[in-house]
Amino acid sequence: MRVAEPPATALLGFVEAVGPLVAAERVRAADVPAAVLTETSARRHLDQAAGDLEDAERVGARLVVPEDKEWPAWQLLCLATAADRGQRWSGVPLGLWVRGPATLPDVFDRAVSVVGARSASTYGESMAAEIGYGLAAAGMTVVSGAAFGIDGSAHRGALNADGCTVAVLACGVDKDYPLGHAALLDRIAETGLVISEYPPGTPPAKHRFLVRNRLIAALSSGTVVVEAGVRSGARNTATTAAALGKVVMAVPGPITSATSVGCHDLLRTGAAILAGSLAEILEAVGPVGEHLADHPDGPHHRTDGLGDDALRVHEALHRRATRSTARVAVESGVPLDRVRAILPELELTGLAERCEGGWRQAPD
Amino acid sequence: MRVAEPPATALLGFVEAVGPLVAAERVRAADVPAAVLTETSARRHLDQAAGDLEDAERVGARLVVPEDKEWPAWQLLCLATAADRGQRWSGVPLGLWVRGPATLPDVFDRAVSVVGARSASTYGESMAAEIGYGLAAAGMTVVSGAAFGIDGSAHRGALNADGCTVAVLACGVDKDYPLGHAALLDRIAETGLVISEYPPGTPPAKHRFLVRNRLIAALSSGTVVVEAGVRSGARNTATTAAALGKVVMAVPGPITSATSVGCHDLLRTGAAILAGSLAEILEAVGPVGEHLADHPDGPHHRTDGLGDDALRVHEALHRRATRSTARVAVESGVPLDRVRAILPELELTGLAERCEGGWRQAPD
Repeated sequence: MRVAEPPATALLGFVEAVGPLVAAERVRAADVPAAVLTETSARRHLDQAAGDLEDAERVGARLVVPEDKEWPAWQLLCLATAADRGQRWSGVPLGLWVRGPATLPDVFDRAVSVVGARSASTYGESMAAEIGYGLAAAGMTVVSGAAFGIDGSAHRGALNADGCTVAVLACGVDKDYPLGHAALLDRIAETGLVISEYPPGTPPAKHRFLVRNRLIAALSSGTVVVEAGVRSGARNTATTAAALGKVVMAVPGPITSATSVGCHDLLRTGAAILAGSLAEILEAVGPVGEHLADHPDGPHHRTDGLGDDALRVHEALHRRATRSTARVAVESGVPLDRVRAILPELELTGLAERCEGGWRQAPD
Repeated sequence: MRVAEPPATALLGFVEAVGPLVAAERVRAADVPAAVLTETSARRHLDQAAGDLEDAERVGARLVVPEDKEWPAWQLLCLATAADRGQRWSGVPLGLWVRGPATLPDVFDRAVSVVGARSASTYGESMAAEIGYGLAAAGMTVVSGAAFGIDGSAHRGALNADGCTVAVLACGVDKDYPLGHAALLDRIAETGLVISEYPPGTPPAKHRFLVRNRLIAALSSGTVVVEAGVRSGARNTATTAAALGKVVMAVPGPITSATSVGCHDLLRTGAAILAGSLAEILEAVGPVGEHLADHPDGPHHRTDGLGDDALRVHEALHRRATRSTARVAVESGVPLDRVRAILPELELTGLAERCEGGWRQAPD
């Protein structure tokens, strides 16, 4: 993990073929296939495994490798097949540095990533917090990237629900990045997980965020973009999630808001499903059939079941004044004999009442 | 028009077959096919054509019939074919009562309907006004229903742009409905049109709004729903527009807003295209190829064109401190010989600069 910049798919294949110990020796000796050499030549002389483990332990982190029971092999499978297809942001990590009490496959069994803009609006931050809270309260793990704005709000929402949340970092797990989220990362690591494929001490870098995003996408069954600028890391996560076959949802916002432009673009182009409520998110990304959203079907009116003619007859009745059957026929344009048949039906369902000399609408 | 409640497709066919004068005589005598009798029996005794024309004239309105040059036959064609298919909200009107100086086919040549909730939010009303203004300024006619809320704002926006706007009423053109929009209707009739298929004096009724909505949908090339509750007239217009093969768009809003639920539902179910800006609306509903929206592609960064390795090398450079080529190789994980080739390329494009003992990022 120290000798190659992730994702290092050639090295991964080599490790899988010859085993990690032999691989380490042969990388150090440059006795490796050309593709592996390309990935490792710049750092193959580095030999600080012991130091890395110590650094990790100092912040209470452990290293989880594919040989471990805890390895989330099933969740990472999509990254392997994507790499086989030559997909850009793919490739299984060589291992994961993990800080926190939760165990990997457990937390990712029912996980949703909630991502978005760092420069989020108040609307975006409250939506992220509400969605994070609601998902966690429903027993889902909230995965995000610990950034300012949407990410942080989503993590906090999950923590406020006493739920599980996972921060996937683009730097070492011993780095507090962003620095302003040091306390938040500590809180996350108390009950959930802070994870990274980068060895301790690795600083964040632009390309590492993109590489990290594939893990966020892979480790959850769906990605919800809460707010996103036109070009943003969140959109990269959404694109990667879609390419990995995951559900992608986007929360709409006012069209006057620059921080919703990315979400609207995802929705306009059909790259994301509209996330209009927590229930809709749970229905789309939760375990199949467990969270069926009550799709809004609005207020019911007492005239709902009426056919066209009956509706017209009902409308032709006055609320207070009495109207003759003949008058109702003219007003409604419905033939008199039909009106004579419909009015008693409306009376039966409580929509019309017979009065001295005619009919009127029954009061609500 | 006085003897049948629209849409009266049997009567229309009868008028087309025998001509309006013979049709009028035979309706009065009940000497008509059964389907025509059903549509006319309740009102066939009414004979007030002269009075209707006088009432219309009193408010400066005229009657336009299929025999007139001004008849918008082409725009109404979709209602005829929809009626042939048995579609619920369809059927060509027998005639149109028209108040205002504009001529029918002209204004509907490039028309967009903008509809939505009566109980709109401030956000919705400003979006409707902006869209109405922008469409009118781009030479499009803004068609709506003159209701409070979104409809009124859309009309006003178009008027403020000195553009053309058309109000389609669910009552006679001599009725100021809603009463609070009497002045607005007068303003619309000064430059645009107030139209209805209902004879003068006809009061509005629930089913007439639904019947009226088919005209709004038919007379425009697309319908934009700005805000809509779960069940609303605007959604009925959208559904009808879609069934008539028109473009349907919906403006998203905050998911906390009840007045956007209908729009979000249209977007979630794929019944509408997201309307994220005026440009997107013009592109979708304007004349083909005339208004191509500049789809947002966000800020461009000077590192945009870089490949993966070059991006990693650039990231591995420090902004102030000088780093050796070897150090850059280790930081980036890119093989040393590749780093040696990439750095001069970055220098050429102004992204890196050579210093005493190494390299650093060039300032922005």
